[in-house]
Amino acid sequence: MEKFKVRFVPLGGIVGVTKNLYVYELYLDDKLKDILIIDCGIGFPLEKELGVDFVIPDISYLQDKKDKIRALLLTHGHEDHIGALPYLYDSLGRPPVYASKLTSVFVENKFKENKQRITVTRVDFEKVYSFGDFRASFVKMTHSIPDTTHIIIGSPIGSFYHGPDFKLDLTPPYGSPPDFYKIVKSGKDGILCLLSDCLGAERPGLTLSESIVGQTFEDEMRKTKGKFIMTTFSSNISRIRQCVEAAIKFNRKIFFLGRSMKQNSQLAAEIGYLPVPEKLIGREEELIKLPPNKVCLIAAGSQGQYGSALSKLADKQNQYTRIKPGDKIIFSSDPIPGNENEVYGVIEDLVAQGADVVYSDIADQLHSSGHGNQEDLKFLIRFTNPAYFIPIGGTIRHQKQYENLAEGLGYDKSKVFSLNEGETIWFDGGKAYKGQEVETKNIYVDAYGVGDVGNIVLRDRKTISSEGVVFSFVIIDKTGRLVARPKIVSRGFVFEKGEEKLYNDALFLIEKVMKPKGGKILELNHIKREIIDNLEGFFFKERGRRPLIVAEIVQL
Amino acid sequence: MEKFKVRFVPLGGIVGVTKNLYVYELYLDDKLKDILIIDCGIGFPLEKELGVDFVIPDISYLQDKKDKIRALLLTHGHEDHIGALPYLYDSLGRPPVYASKLTSVFVENKFKENKQRITVTRVDFEKVYSFGDFRASFVKMTHSIPDTTHIIIGSPIGSFYHGPDFKLDLTPPYGSPPDFYKIVKSGKDGILCLLSDCLGAERPGLTLSESIVGQTFEDEMRKTKGKFIMTTFSSNISRIRQCVEAAIKFNRKIFFLGRSMKQNSQLAAEIGYLPVPEKLIGREEELIKLPPNKVCLIAAGSQGQYGSALSKLADKQNQYTRIKPGDKIIFSSDPIPGNENEVYGVIEDLVAQGADVVYSDIADQLHSSGHGNQEDLKFLIRFTNPAYFIPIGGTIRHQKQYENLAEGLGYDKSKVFSLNEGETIWFDGGKAYKGQEVETKNIYVDAYGVGDVGNIVLRDRKTISSEGVVFSFVIIDKTGRLVARPKIVSRGFVFEKGEEKLYNDALFLIEKVMKPKGGKILELNHIKREIIDNLEGFFFKERGRRPLIVAEIVQL
Repeated sequence: MEKFKVRFVPLGGIVGVTKNLYVYELYLDDKLKDILIIDCGIGFPLEKELGVDFVIPDISYLQDKKDKIRALLLTHGHEDHIGALPYLYDSLGRPPVYASKLTSVFVENKFKENKQRITVTRVDFEKVYSFGDFRASFVKMTHSIPDTTHIIIGSPIGSFYHGPDFKLDLTPPYGSPPDFYKIVKSGKDGILCLLSDCLGAERPGLTLSESIVGQTFEDEMRKTKGKFIMTTFSSNISRIRQCVEAAIKFNRKIFFLGRSMKQNSQLAAEIGYLPVPEKLIGREEELIKLPPNKVCLIAAGSQGQYGSALSKLADKQNQYTRIKPGDKIIFSSDPIPGNENEVYGVIEDLVAQGADVVYSDIADQLHSSGHGNQEDLKFLIRFTNPAYFIPIGGTIRHQKQYENLAEGLGYDKSKVFSLNEGETIWFDGGKAYKGQEVETKNIYVDAYGVGDVGNIVLRDRKTISSEGVVFSFVIIDKTGRLVARPKIVSRGFVFEKGEEKLYNDALFLIEKVMKPKGGKILELNHIKREIIDNLEGFFFKERGRRPLIVAEIVQL
Repeated sequence: MEKFKVRFVPLGGIVGVTKNLYVYELYLDDKLKDILIIDCGIGFPLEKELGVDFVIPDISYLQDKKDKIRALLLTHGHEDHIGALPYLYDSLGRPPVYASKLTSVFVENKFKENKQRITVTRVDFEKVYSFGDFRASFVKMTHSIPDTTHIIIGSPIGSFYHGPDFKLDLTPPYGSPPDFYKIVKSGKDGILCLLSDCLGAERPGLTLSESIVGQTFEDEMRKTKGKFIMTTFSSNISRIRQCVEAAIKFNRKIFFLGRSMKQNSQLAAEIGYLPVPEKLIGREEELIKLPPNKVCLIAAGSQGQYGSALSKLADKQNQYTRIKPGDKIIFSSDPIPGNENEVYGVIEDLVAQGADVVYSDIADQLHSSGHGNQEDLKFLIRFTNPAYFIPIGGTIRHQKQYENLAEGLGYDKSKVFSLNEGETIWFDGGKAYKGQEVETKNIYVDAYGVGDVGNIVLRDRKTISSEGVVFSFVIIDKTGRLVARPKIVSRGFVFEKGEEKLYNDALFLIEKVMKPKGGKILELNHIKREIIDNLEGFFFKERGRRPLIVAEIVQL
């Protein structure tokens, strides 16, 4: 008799929160038959890698299995679920891609920008797709971006409920609420394993609806005499839409700042997800003459990214407008773990210029998380009533909390598999057990800033490795002054032995950067960025090459 | 062609919160064919009627339609849903009664106490029952009492989701969580009208699980050096169970105080819903010798009812024990609107004796409401997605809030029918519209206290009306002193003209009651109660009759 088994292989998205890429493998008589891939996102490393801004999943494991990949399904349009596709699609052998409408538009645009081509099939929610011996059916779900989905994956040995990033939003500002019938029906029919978002597992209660944010925007806008500035992820179309609606209500002209923000809002507008009257869209130059109470800025850079539209405002680098007392800046997104310093740095700069800054720490309703709190997660468990659990999209502490949640609902903790990247689970005859580990490593991509990452021309990682790497180390004291000469080490760039002068000049350059300017001590990440920028320019001028520059600063 | 219509007739449970009795009528070619009755409870009037403790539904409308009543279905075992059955069952023509296990046990016991007989069919949740051309299927739901149900009522013209008192409890301390599949499936199949609990419509968020209360009991018990005393509704078996479990953990002997509390806990224990080791159940006499830290009292009287077990403790009337500093009293139930004065009166007395009193105003997690907050209500709406709504079990302000909730979910307010008692709705060809009003009046029952109401022998209301009524009026100043002679008026008792002496003596009796005792000014309701008690005894001694006594006090 034929014997089927399924193996789940997370190549990303586990422990690291972002960089989502999940592999479902179907084996027939111990031979790999079909592969289904879910999502293909970029990652924001929790511990900042040396000078590296983001990472993409390592798909080397799949290199000799391309012919088995039946499809790549995308759950929603956030960067950490779709952002790596342009870099990996060819390497995956260009499998058929399926996604909902907004996700498709974002992906197709991403490819167009990179002068690549892709066809994304827009999913029909009524349909059950067959991919080899896998079946897949998309479920309407809610999150902080419209057209978010979950996926029910059928196989000859049982069904999987693939439930990444979600919250149960009963009143989404755009689109329909979750398809409860389909979810609960899947549970009734039997779910072998629930793969669930777990990022909100520490937070009690139910997550607020996205709609609450719209009311807050209106309330804040009503009170604001100066410019109204909102910052969020540029993919958060629901939130942008609600800010736009408030601006229309209060007759403020809308300015999208930052390339990603401009592009995404335009894409969303094109498919009808962001209706704004033409005359209410401003061009940045108009900011010079418009009274502040007629202005609503929607700016990229909510993670405090260096060089982002918001960071430029904070650094007085915007050429058309300045922050003034009476201005209000709303951070409508939480800092991604690891970005806190950058975010608070930008906030300090804005407050110093007299602005009123409102952020989630002091006003809960500004940022209704896109991720379900404990009650959302518990509902999904009760709805699907699975035999096994794999918490995804969270760190170890979120996984542990998720185990506790499941236990609180009466499940045995041994049914919950809290995995590390590359750790695999076999599903075999109704049982689940750990399989052999798959080796993965982080693949670093060097770029300018996180939020805008989808829209800049990235150096191809192969090119980077061919250009070499330059490490620079700087040791400073508490006041920010150098306590020793900087150090530079390179690999694969130019041979150091014969290039003493080049490296000496580079060291001088770093020392120049480190000199205190006008008494202001820069934030560490800004210094890093300046070192990197200067060295990049310098090496390119001197040798015509662009090695990956890493700057590390140790403060004593 | 045959033409069916359905009419919904609420004979109670609407606006007044309690006294639930709902009638569904099926008409064939404008002729009444089948009647289904849901619930038959006592009521606690919001505005205290003169000396009347509770009311029962007025079923005169049904008197000439008894032969059409196909069944009486009970949703759960709370007094306001089952308590009136012993008084009305005969008048309803003794239709077949259906209920879940605990509800059946409570009802059967109630009848046994009154020396009446009843057979309650324990429902099979898998079954669809036929009652004439109605169909009914019970849904497992969660509330503050185990075995709570909702009912899906099918009819030739569409289905009704009858959803009284509930919250979506994912971790009920006893029994299973709500049957989400059945609920959502009913919505998928199509619900013409959702009749939903609305009492929690003002409260944001999701209601806390009953289970949270158990943790609080443990935390409080751990800190308590003296006696641990918990009071709640005696029908709240889930809460009693959690208190018992905490007591077992901390090795405290358990004493059930109050008849209702003793009986209900015994009934629940008999069917396995309240497992307590025999040796941990104490008899009240043992309280004299047990050290306070070995004692857990579970007392009736959470509504501050005069004469209840708790009120006796507060009044130093318990013959085996006294409240001492170090004792902890936990009110694990909110005052029913209208009972606040009595509850706070008891709390004051307890605190005066040095006890630590914890109640919901100062500790939210003590009383997780049995009624769903806004999110619970919204979930039920999304699950069932009805064409029409009728909010039940709330007052006018809850109904209005419920309308707002439905509107917030995108439904037109015109689809929500906020009814008064007796106001009817026709369902006719997919449409709903108001029908002719049915006349109802409150039928008063005179008894001692609310919580214990199910367990005392009530005077039959016919007897009351044959005995007559005596009204007494007292006018006092701020200090509680009489400012004029009391007044007595009677009807249907004895003819006043020939009975001057009787009435004069009665007046003296009232004046005696009103004399301040030991400097303590009694709470108004206590004074009322004392007047009633004294007059009752007096008239019975003098004339051998027991008229309904009403005492009204006006404080200037």
